[in-house]
This record gives sequence, C-alpha cells and structure tokens, in this order.
Amino acid sequence: MKINKNYLALEDSYLFSTIAKKVKAYAEKNPDKKIIRLGIGDVTIPLCSASVEAMKKASEEQGTKANFHGYGPEQGYEFLKTAIQSYYKEFAVSLEADEIFISDGAKSDLGNILDIFSRDNVVLIPNPVYPVYLDTNIMDGRTIVYMDANEENGFLPMPDPTVKADLIYMCSPNNPTGAVYSKEQLEEWVAYALKNDAVILFDAAYEAFITENGLPRSIFEIEGARQCAIEFCSFSKTAGFTGTRCGYTVVPMELKREGTVLNKLWLRRQTTKFNGVSYIVQRGAEAVFTKEGREQIKAATVYYQKNAKVITETMKELGIWFVGGVNSPYVWIKVQEGMTSWEYFDYLLEEKNIVGTPGSGFGRNGEGYFRLTAFGDADATKEAMERLKSK
Amino acid sequence: MKINKNYLALEDSYLFSTIAKKVKAYAEKNPDKKIIRLGIGDVTIPLCSASVEAMKKASEEQGTKANFHGYGPEQGYEFLKTAIQSYYKEFAVSLEADEIFISDGAKSDLGNILDIFSRDNVVLIPNPVYPVYLDTNIMDGRTIVYMDANEENGFLPMPDPTVKADLIYMCSPNNPTGAVYSKEQLEEWVAYALKNDAVILFDAAYEAFITENGLPRSIFEIEGARQCAIEFCSFSKTAGFTGTRCGYTVVPMELKREGTVLNKLWLRRQTTKFNGVSYIVQRGAEAVFTKEGREQIKAATVYYQKNAKVITETMKELGIWFVGGVNSPYVWIKVQEGMTSWEYFDYLLEEKNIVGTPGSGFGRNGEGYFRLTAFGDADATKEAMERLKSK
Repeated sequence: MKINKNYLALEDSYLFSTIAKKVKAYAEKNPDKKIIRLGIGDVTIPLCSASVEAMKKASEEQGTKANFHGYGPEQGYEFLKTAIQSYYKEFAVSLEADEIFISDGAKSDLGNILDIFSRDNVVLIPNPVYPVYLDTNIMDGRTIVYMDANEENGFLPMPDPTVKADLIYMCSPNNPTGAVYSKEQLEEWVAYALKNDAVILFDAAYEAFITENGLPRSIFEIEGARQCAIEFCSFSKTAGFTGTRCGYTVVPMELKREGTVLNKLWLRRQTTKFNGVSYIVQRGAEAVFTKEGREQIKAATVYYQKNAKVITETMKELGIWFVGGVNSPYVWIKVQEGMTSWEYFDYLLEEKNIVGTPGSGFGRNGEGYFRLTAFGDADATKEAMERLKSK
Repeated sequence: MKINKNYLALEDSYLFSTIAKKVKAYAEKNPDKKIIRLGIGDVTIPLCSASVEAMKKASEEQGTKANFHGYGPEQGYEFLKTAIQSYYKEFAVSLEADEIFISDGAKSDLGNILDIFSRDNVVLIPNPVYPVYLDTNIMDGRTIVYMDANEENGFLPMPDPTVKADLIYMCSPNNPTGAVYSKEQLEEWVAYALKNDAVILFDAAYEAFITENGLPRSIFEIEGARQCAIEFCSFSKTAGFTGTRCGYTVVPMELKREGTVLNKLWLRRQTTKFNGVSYIVQRGAEAVFTKEGREQIKAATVYYQKNAKVITETMKELGIWFVGGVNSPYVWIKVQEGMTSWEYFDYLLEEKNIVGTPGSGFGRNGEGYFRLTAFGDADATKEAMERLKSK
C-alpha cells in the first residue's frame, strides 16, 4: 500500500495557531487589557432573516411526506440556479443553467476542480495568496510557478509573456491584499490564457464588496473568458454563509481543452464524488436573492465597508502605504520600516492591543506587510484606529 | 493544458436514465395502468421531528448575533462527534473524537479518500457493486481487480490468497445485493488486509438495517481492523438524510502505512479541500441520536424492514432465489430462467406494472439478477407482491 507521497511535501501552516497562541499568552498576562481583533477572516453579522425563514420552512418541509426532498440533483436545484442567472444578468453576464454548479463552498470546488486536470500541468499562482491554491496543487505534485505581487504592481501581477502556464489562479478582490483587477487588466489575462491554451481559475468570493463602477464582478464580463475561465463564487462573505455552507462554480460550455468540454468532465466528477448541497441550505441561499434578502445582505456589506473606510482613512492620516479596503473587506498595509510582519504583529498586540495577520503567512512576498480586516464590530474597529493614531 | 485523460476511460452509466425512459414511454402508452416503483434507492419517509426541530432552532441561531456560527471545524463539531461516540459504544466500539470526520455524505468521502493514496495501488472491487467505487478509481487511473460475487458465495466474496491488493472495497449490508458479512467472514478479510499491508474501505451506509444478532455493524468490531480499515457511514438511509446531507468517516489512529498516520493525511486533505458541514445540518444529525430521535428513526427503519419482509416472503412462496432483505432494504432476486436482467425488467414493467433495477447495471456478475427495494409505500409494496403471485 502506497500513500500519496505529495502530501509529505506540504508545509504545516502555523499562521493562525501561532496567532491564537500569542494572543492567548498576552491576554493571560494582561487580563485588564481590551484586545481588539482585526485579524479575523470570518463574518460576524448573522444571516439575513429571509434566509433564516426560508431554511426554517425547508426544514419543516423535510419533516412532511408531501414536501420531503430526498436525493436532489448533484449540480443543485433549478430554483437556485435561476436566481443566480438573474443575479449575473445585473452585470450583463448571461449563463445557462447547466453552466452553474451549486457547491458547499468555494474552498471545496477550488480543490476538487483539480481532479479534471492532468497532474502534468504547470500552475501559476500569485504570491502572496490564499494558501489553498498552493496546497491543493502540491497534493497533486504539479509544477508551481509564482507570479510576484508587490508594491510596484499594486499587488496585481500581470502576465509575463516568457512564462508558459497551464492553470492560472486569480482572486479579485484579492485575499489577502484586497487589490482588485480592472477590466483592462483582466482583458490582458484572458488574452494571455487564450494564447497559451491555459485555464484561469477565477476566485470571485469577494465580488459583492466591489463598489467602484467599471470594476468587473465576474471574469465573464471579459470577452473571450468563456473560452478560458472557470469562476468560483461563495455565499460566505456575500451573505454570511461561512458556517451555513453554500457556493457555486461556473464552467462555461465553450471551455474546451484537448477536444473535451470541461463542463462535462466537471459534471462527471460531481455526479460521481458529490451528492449535492442540502435542500435546506439551497433554499436559504435562494432567499438571499429575494428583494428582502438583497436589501438585508446589502446592509451587512455596507456595515463592513464602513469599517474598511475607517481603517483606510486612518492609514491615509498616518501616511501608511496600503492597498485594498475600497472594494474589499481586507486592507493590506505596509509595516513600519525595519520591522518584519511578525515583529509588527507583536508590536500591535503588546502596544496597541490590536490583533491582525502577518503578511508573511501568505507567502514570501507578504513579508513586510500586514492584513487588517473589516469583519469586526464597528465601534471596536473605530477604537482600534484611535489607538493607532495615539502616541 | 492537459485534461485528466483517465476521465475518457469512464463508461457513461445509462442505468437509471434508461429505466426512467422506459417507464415514461410505457406510462404514456398505458395511462390507465398503476405503476409501482420498487427500483428506487432513495428514502420516502420524511425526517424525524427531532431533526426538523433541531434544524429550525439552528436556523434561528444563525440569524442572531449572540448564537451565530461562522466557520466551524472542518472535521465537524464536537457535539455531533460525541453523539456518534456514544452510538458506537452500543456495539462495543470505542472511538476517539479525532478519529471521526463529519462529512456531507458517504459518497463524497468514498471518492475523496482516494486523494491520500498513491495512484499506483491495486484496487480490489466486488462485482456487482455500487458504481462509485469503480468510477472514482478509473478517474485516478488505478489498476482494478474484481472479486466475483455470485450465487455460490451468496454474493459475499472471500479473500483469494493469490490476489495481492492494496485497497479493498467492502459494502456490508451490500448495495445492491443486500448480503451481509458475518463476524467470521470479516475476520478473514481483516487477516488478509493485515497480511497484504492493504487498507479496507468499509462502506457501512446500511448498518442500521441489521436486525440479526451477531452480525457486525462496524468493521471495528473485528480485532485488528483499527490497523487496516476506514469506515464510511451516512445518515441518508439511517435517518432519511438523502437530501439533507450528512455522514461521517472513521479513520483510526493506529492505521499507518509507509510510516505515516493516515488520519493525519485525511485531516490535511479535509482542512485544505473542505470547510465542514453546515452547522444547521450537524444539529439535525445530532438530534437523530436523542432518545426521541432514535425512536423516530427506528420506526422508519422498521417500516422499510416490513416492506422487505413482504418481498422476501413472496419470493419464498414463488420459489425464487434471493439474497438480502433481512438485514437490508435491498432484495436481490434471480430472474426467470432464460431471461436477461433487462428482459425481466421489461416483463415486470409490461406484465406486472412493477419497476425494479436490472442487476446487470451493477456489473457483469449482476446479469441474471434484479434488485427490488423496500423504500416504497407499504400498501404499494404489498400490491406489487400480489401482482407477482397472480398468474
């Protein structure tokens, strides 16, 4: 019996456990200090009442013979796909129902999609980045090439014509940096992918935070993307579904490689290794798209966006370089000259009693940077910024 | 860009779509005939009220700031693991919480577990069998060896010492045959696996249907199994969760291969490619284990078991060879001499207006057999059996 030895090449991530340990140790030594957490990547505002009511109703249905739902379609119910189709029409993207696959979250599908690709492909991954892109490819033993995100390119790396890649990961608005690609920049990426016969895996989990006009909400707003991209979306940050679990993946019918329609491969993967998302949860997700649901989740997004503005205004006032925060819940700041990300973490924790996330935890190019998030309480976020401004 | 070419070696399964087409065509031509469906593998009794109430409560919690649950542990909540630990104690199996992984269903985990094994392993699969075992391994390009299940061995194949396998699939009570391994038989399999350094992937999705004393409910009732087996369980058939989605996988800490603890590999797989099951659904699953829940789901199982008895009594009366039905919702019957499985399907549909599943759809050795299920309505099941008995 042989194990998958690629797993032995994975590095253990101690980022969040180290943070937790340091915060715990400090809190125990300093029980009088009020620690404010701006490191959290999870939402804090509860589900909208439209979703709650829909899930209560669906739970009741599951308890009656007449309205009971057994096995559903692995790809998700039509009622939810229809709601998503209407949503995409708002940014002028037309999708067929068969192009939408309901998932239990973007993280699952971002990992599982690799099943349909050969292990011989070369993968292009931004650095710094959400660690899942890297780890899932290490597990398959693929060759990984990094694209550098840094201050010079505003943490938005552009195609290097000398690099030949088969699979390209993009996340916009970005986790952890909060940077967002413009239409023109995505056009360049689509042109690069088409030229190289590559496939873009586009993580759009944070699209709902885009406020500025003209910034694409979906890769499919770009001409040619239907021939070279798969998009991963989530209700996690959009509608607070981090613990309720629902997302969706869009695989256009025009996306073909080696004479094969990738949508059909993914359908085969999902019908074989997945049994669909809970009927109850899909009803909760559907309710997000009702008029009432849309208003309720918009209010939550606006709440987080106000927090982000409090943070970015403070950075401007203090003359600290940053990116993100405008179309993203994440603000990526440059740490004080001469400090590493972890030294800045210790400084903020001990001197200001603020917890953030060291940028170096997201990759080599994150060194010297720090992630603050807008998912906290509004008053606490304001207080944290006052502390930063005080001497 | 290269696709995973192993997918091209998959055969399309037309089993259930062909059945649907044939039934539709017959129903359209014969609108006056009352067709009884005994082919269905899905449950028909709704969720127990204990689960429904728990999920309504959990949905409400998700709508309040104080009780909101964001990201949960990928491996599942302690409250559900604790309930499962108590359940296993009833058949004298002691599990650590870290050995239990809550899943969105056995199908997902049965497919995903293969991530942690090398593609170089030889896989031993019974024939006939649940098609997922075969297809998920074809997707990875593994070498597959079949073990013949047939009338001579009561559709319970035993180890062949001349065959060297690395991964062994077992399903007991079996889908589609309903056959159940005895303790002595499982002991032989465990001895074979230990001798060959193999891992048994034990699908226990139907364990709740076991009524006869002495038949193992879990592979871990067998000494040595903790060194060679992984068990996959589901709330689907036990508690009607086919559309609500929850299951669990047990990976014992003693299970090591090539110096590596497989539990740690699976943990790494799940924390990287999965984000846990919905909090709401986990609360629903927990409620299955309450006194009230246990009584309610027991009543549903007894209902299905009575249907199975109606079917098996009829087969005895008619002198038709069968296996299953006693400790399983499935009855696997031998078709009339000189008929293929599909010919018998047509005969039953056209002459008796009964729908079942042709055994040949589950593999070569299923030819000449037919699957009837006990998940239907009690009165309809009785009527179907009366029709079989009438000339």
